[in-house]
Amino acid sequence: MSSPLVQPVILAGGSGTRLWPLSTTEFPKQFRPLLGKRSTFQDTLSRVTSSALYKAPITITNQTHAQLAQEQQAEIGVAGILIAETARRDSAAAVALAALAAQRDDPQALVLTLAADHVIPDAEEFRRTVQAGCAAAASGKIVVFGLTPAEPKTCYGYIQPGTALDESGKVSDVNSFVEKPDLETALGYLQSGYLWNSGNFLFRADVMIEAFHKFSPEIISAVQDSFENATELPKGIFNLDAERFEKTPADSIDYAIIERIDNCAVVKGDFIWSDVGSWDAVWEILPKDAEQNSHVGQAHFIESQGCFIHSEGRPTVAVGLNDIIVVSTDDAVLVLPKDKTQQVKKVAQLLGS
Amino acid sequence: MSSPLVQPVILAGGSGTRLWPLSTTEFPKQFRPLLGKRSTFQDTLSRVTSSALYKAPITITNQTHAQLAQEQQAEIGVAGILIAETARRDSAAAVALAALAAQRDDPQALVLTLAADHVIPDAEEFRRTVQAGCAAAASGKIVVFGLTPAEPKTCYGYIQPGTALDESGKVSDVNSFVEKPDLETALGYLQSGYLWNSGNFLFRADVMIEAFHKFSPEIISAVQDSFENATELPKGIFNLDAERFEKTPADSIDYAIIERIDNCAVVKGDFIWSDVGSWDAVWEILPKDAEQNSHVGQAHFIESQGCFIHSEGRPTVAVGLNDIIVVSTDDAVLVLPKDKTQQVKKVAQLLGS
Repeated sequence: MSSPLVQPVILAGGSGTRLWPLSTTEFPKQFRPLLGKRSTFQDTLSRVTSSALYKAPITITNQTHAQLAQEQQAEIGVAGILIAETARRDSAAAVALAALAAQRDDPQALVLTLAADHVIPDAEEFRRTVQAGCAAAASGKIVVFGLTPAEPKTCYGYIQPGTALDESGKVSDVNSFVEKPDLETALGYLQSGYLWNSGNFLFRADVMIEAFHKFSPEIISAVQDSFENATELPKGIFNLDAERFEKTPADSIDYAIIERIDNCAVVKGDFIWSDVGSWDAVWEILPKDAEQNSHVGQAHFIESQGCFIHSEGRPTVAVGLNDIIVVSTDDAVLVLPKDKTQQVKKVAQLLGS
Repeated sequence: MSSPLVQPVILAGGSGTRLWPLSTTEFPKQFRPLLGKRSTFQDTLSRVTSSALYKAPITITNQTHAQLAQEQQAEIGVAGILIAETARRDSAAAVALAALAAQRDDPQALVLTLAADHVIPDAEEFRRTVQAGCAAAASGKIVVFGLTPAEPKTCYGYIQPGTALDESGKVSDVNSFVEKPDLETALGYLQSGYLWNSGNFLFRADVMIEAFHKFSPEIISAVQDSFENATELPKGIFNLDAERFEKTPADSIDYAIIERIDNCAVVKGDFIWSDVGSWDAVWEILPKDAEQNSHVGQAHFIESQGCFIHSEGRPTVAVGLNDIIVVSTDDAVLVLPKDKTQQVKKVAQLLGS
């Protein structure tokens, strides 16, 4: 069975500092070689360009990073247009843009929105999961991706699947979305078959636009207005009309749309996935040595266990350490225990990054 | 009472890697800004140039670093000749050289040999201690400097003082020198009034030369031969004759001379002193914040206690750490607990530094 072509839209407008000093507002993590040679933005592009399933990607980022994103596309031989946001307006505006941009080609285009900073090592299983969700999306559902939980994480939201929508059992209706739980609740979720919510979506452009008109009309109206008045400069980069985009209310796609609609479906993914939202998550996703150490760059572990080193330029040596993270970039060196990584955002603010 | 002028001789030929990555065989610690802006070599020079007590300093270093030493002298406005060793021959050869070089000016010159990598913050008290030792040295004693122990260190040798030689009680005969003790023995030493042996000496040039002729004639003979055939190139740097210096037996001054003679005296110093032989010693000698953290360079301590940061170029941030040392240079980053610093030499060898 051949599937319709899917329009991938990469959402690359984030500016997190939870991976400081690697990630800064000037040079956010999605454009950095977080796990090795390529950026997660480039890895995300590669995931949706190697197959007959996808159209050329569209990337939505902010004005500051549009040129960088274009260069990083070119580096890996990908050609795709970029839409540059002129202000930070959260994920609802970006998903609305994705739908509007895809609709220019085909009103009923299937749109796959993907965060540029997620890590999915198994591109093939990811592709099969997207394919599994296409029928539900084509039928008018807004499809979310639910991951089989590897452990009771308290840093992710969860999805409770409902009635199965296909014979494979991979696609179901959504009974409910639930916020980040405490550990006990998370343990209960695992036993009840809940899934991690990866925050990526597959939908028909017209379905999403209609949902916006119904639940968040101010957002779609301002976004459409700024998009129709965008200027292409330089080639391939469409700058939204700043004054009009400025008027867009800032909201998350979850609050603006997903939690208000009743036509959601979930497709279950059995691939390893991480939003690498903190340094301990980076440690976790990487291959480890016999002592449970993982690293990027030149690293040496001596009598050390459960450590992570990210080292740019120069070698980093850990001696006699347990569960310690060391991040060394050209800008700064950060050392902290693995269970303190939630403090990094605060540290970055403190140091003015 | 005016004292005779003292000839300071700085022994700057060491190449320790116990402070790796700051100290390497190519760029050893005495030429590095270990405690801040200036090198300990420069601090040592400053300690013996600001007073009417001292002649212009002589520096003994190895050929590789003679030019660097000359530049570092010039930086702080010190003019003094340099003697460049063409091979590593340990401290006995260096002290013999010091005596021979001082003797050219005055056969009975008082010579003060000083390690270039020791830290003595109180230059004034140091000067008073040297002055207190001059009479004993002028009378033909070889004077060692004994420090009142701040704690029962097991990384230093100790001196047992004997009969007092002056009314102040600062200068005594030496009953015995003892090797690095275990902790229990060290505690006993403290109760019995033993002193730390700082390994620096004050003596008459002719007395030391005579002692060499008696106890280590091969050393003084080869050193004298190579010194008399030295070439001055470039100006101010005297390169020993390589072939002749090569023949000098390598030995420490303690084994070659000090432990064999019976005319030693000890002058008691009440100043803070450290041989900064490891990173925990560097932490110890520096001023600390309320949480017992100390640092050189741009450092930030957040919820951290008892830590040390040496940071070159870029800031280093410690979050939630206890008793951890972080050393960040242009060449490498090293992270280890304070009680593992004895492993650094091994680490440096492992990494080929």
